[in-house]
Amino acid sequence: MNAFNVSEHMQTLGLQAKAAAFLMARADAATKNRALKALARRLREAGPALAVANQKDLERATAAGLSAPMVDRLKLTPKVLETVAEGCEQLAGMADVIGEIIGMKQQPSGIRVGQMRVPIGVFGMIYESRPNVTIEAASLAIKSGNAAILRGGSEAIDSNKALALLVSEALAEAGLPVDAVQLVQTTDREAVGQLIAMPEFVDVIIPRGGKGLIERISRDAKVPVIKHLDGNCHVYVDDTAEFDMALRIVDNAKTQKYSPCNAAEGLLVAASVADHFLPEIAAIFAAKGVEMRCDPAAAAILRASEAHHPQAKVIDAVESDWSEEYLAAVISIKVVAGLDEAIAHINRYSSHHTDAIVTRDHINAQRFLREVDSASVMVNASTRFADGFEYGLGAEIGISTDKFHARGPVGIEGLTSLKYVVLGQGEVRG
Amino acid sequence: MNAFNVSEHMQTLGLQAKAAAFLMARADAATKNRALKALARRLREAGPALAVANQKDLERATAAGLSAPMVDRLKLTPKVLETVAEGCEQLAGMADVIGEIIGMKQQPSGIRVGQMRVPIGVFGMIYESRPNVTIEAASLAIKSGNAAILRGGSEAIDSNKALALLVSEALAEAGLPVDAVQLVQTTDREAVGQLIAMPEFVDVIIPRGGKGLIERISRDAKVPVIKHLDGNCHVYVDDTAEFDMALRIVDNAKTQKYSPCNAAEGLLVAASVADHFLPEIAAIFAAKGVEMRCDPAAAAILRASEAHHPQAKVIDAVESDWSEEYLAAVISIKVVAGLDEAIAHINRYSSHHTDAIVTRDHINAQRFLREVDSASVMVNASTRFADGFEYGLGAEIGISTDKFHARGPVGIEGLTSLKYVVLGQGEVRG
Repeated sequence: MNAFNVSEHMQTLGLQAKAAAFLMARADAATKNRALKALARRLREAGPALAVANQKDLERATAAGLSAPMVDRLKLTPKVLETVAEGCEQLAGMADVIGEIIGMKQQPSGIRVGQMRVPIGVFGMIYESRPNVTIEAASLAIKSGNAAILRGGSEAIDSNKALALLVSEALAEAGLPVDAVQLVQTTDREAVGQLIAMPEFVDVIIPRGGKGLIERISRDAKVPVIKHLDGNCHVYVDDTAEFDMALRIVDNAKTQKYSPCNAAEGLLVAASVADHFLPEIAAIFAAKGVEMRCDPAAAAILRASEAHHPQAKVIDAVESDWSEEYLAAVISIKVVAGLDEAIAHINRYSSHHTDAIVTRDHINAQRFLREVDSASVMVNASTRFADGFEYGLGAEIGISTDKFHARGPVGIEGLTSLKYVVLGQGEVRG
Repeated sequence: MNAFNVSEHMQTLGLQAKAAAFLMARADAATKNRALKALARRLREAGPALAVANQKDLERATAAGLSAPMVDRLKLTPKVLETVAEGCEQLAGMADVIGEIIGMKQQPSGIRVGQMRVPIGVFGMIYESRPNVTIEAASLAIKSGNAAILRGGSEAIDSNKALALLVSEALAEAGLPVDAVQLVQTTDREAVGQLIAMPEFVDVIIPRGGKGLIERISRDAKVPVIKHLDGNCHVYVDDTAEFDMALRIVDNAKTQKYSPCNAAEGLLVAASVADHFLPEIAAIFAAKGVEMRCDPAAAAILRASEAHHPQAKVIDAVESDWSEEYLAAVISIKVVAGLDEAIAHINRYSSHHTDAIVTRDHINAQRFLREVDSASVMVNASTRFADGFEYGLGAEIGISTDKFHARGPVGIEGLTSLKYVVLGQGEVRG
């Protein structure tokens, strides 16, 4: 009986989303921006009501014995609300990509052929804990002219319902269909299984959360998934790298923050500069408590080096270290003969997320860019730049480690597709 | 025992394709073009050897009682071979899209960010009967810098093996890996199931064949599929359509050829012009033996009309007519109040392949382009133009009725993806 209801609920959401998507695709930029600004305003006004809903989630989480960091993630603080409100306003200020026509060219037959950017239709977003994702997803749907079905974490259900209500009100205020953004109203896990298997209603699924969730969704989905799995990123210090630049980039890529997927997990150093470079970077890592998992050559240099600080943690790497995404104060280090070995190592062990070379050599830089098979390839810059905002995309719906449709940081264009537009003057096919 | 071998064979093909893909991605344009020209030459030289192989397929097909048209499709005539040889040469003459960098822009941090076009990796092509598809697929793989695993129809296995041998020789002659194009060596159906479920080796599947095949593959595939299902295309004759232009376009869209997916299957006519337009187009259709499945309004006009030729086949449409892809001398006809009803009808019944409006009205033309949710939307041109060559794509790997990755006619770019390229001068994240 319960299962039947979930199925019915999801079918209803799907049908309603499909109908709303058609109206959203026709909505003009001014209307969509009006809805975004209304949403920002309502988020600021609704503080007390949201606090009541949020409190329910927090109490339930505490009673269930969730860890303090997990409870923290659920909190809709005034700061969190202001951040998402500003996000809505920023989106409202961005140029609208819908209706853009590219590449219009006349063909030998006389017809002119180009492509028009249109919304993809309906996307499903599946996420865990943080309720602010509800607003991020809703605002992306509005700006991109899509409809969205949102499935948040069960632990945030009361906060999400309160936020979804604000979204409906903002849509209605702007004259847009309230079904353009719908929240799944049940915490039954069956709803996720349904959402990812309704190709007749849902065009793409965007999961946000732990690797387990994303793997499960990718495996079972009957529609495309824009997904991001591992971030095992590398910096390769080439023979001709500028010494100070290499230190700065490697340090930043590893230590500026340990948790992001674009932080470096592996350091490769050309043999010709390893003797000089490794002790210097090891001193920096030692001072910051970064553990170094080294291949024999790197370990030998570091253990022999005078600069080998007593507090440096030099450990012999094992095979699994080359594949690991530490997301912690740990880095794998390997001495390579040169560019060829660096590229081979990266293409074998990298998660194809982001990899960088530090070099002055133009030919090596070009080869690295062409031959490293990763979503982002960089010359003389920190891997930490790999994100939608740093790339100027304005908003980020996720980072894709796939090659199909979207690769790397995905902006609003990832929620659109291009249809062909043909302008004729009565041409027929001969 | 047999199943185990198929599985082993497919795994071997997958591993070899993956290794070859890496080398193909690095190959320069001149090398790839040399392979294409070598393939063209070998196709012309190998006539007698190919005839022997082809004869085996033809004899087997005749013995198995295949229909004459089915046997015909298997034939590798000198004309067929010359056509595919010329196709290879044309591809060799086209500009190379691999390595192209687009949108390079400096960001506030100082880094410059753009996107580089790279091969997608390995594609699997699954096709029926016609052995010339082996060469088309092989040449697309070579030009796009991908590796391919080809699974042809069992009835063409001997021809396909002989053609695949020529491809290997051409690859070797140019110094490219022979595993860049591999033919599945067994006719066991199990091989298809394996090919579409090896995401670790295969990046995308392109099926060519009947709807049943494509539906089965789409349902079971564990990797993306570039597919094309129905082509239920429409022409809408608007109030302000130029009369002669409308007649010419509707006639061409329906009757220039009945079998292509971009032929029109439905005609919508604005009520204000139906009395004049329908009898004239009916006279053309009557002369060509095109059956007309009409809604009550259209049927009334045609039956009352003086121009109603005795040989005109006016039939009352039933609900299923609006969705049907006839691929035959049949068209559905409906009188609509105007643009709104036309768009609503198309968005409900069209297969979202190609739909056209004939109009002089600029606002209606713009609305039709924006609001009709089809892969190709046209103003004042025949739906028959919807193909890769007419759109100037140079080559066509297929037509996609999906919205993800590629929509509409898909050229070589459909076998590529864009990776981010970041050029810095030592920038780090603050």
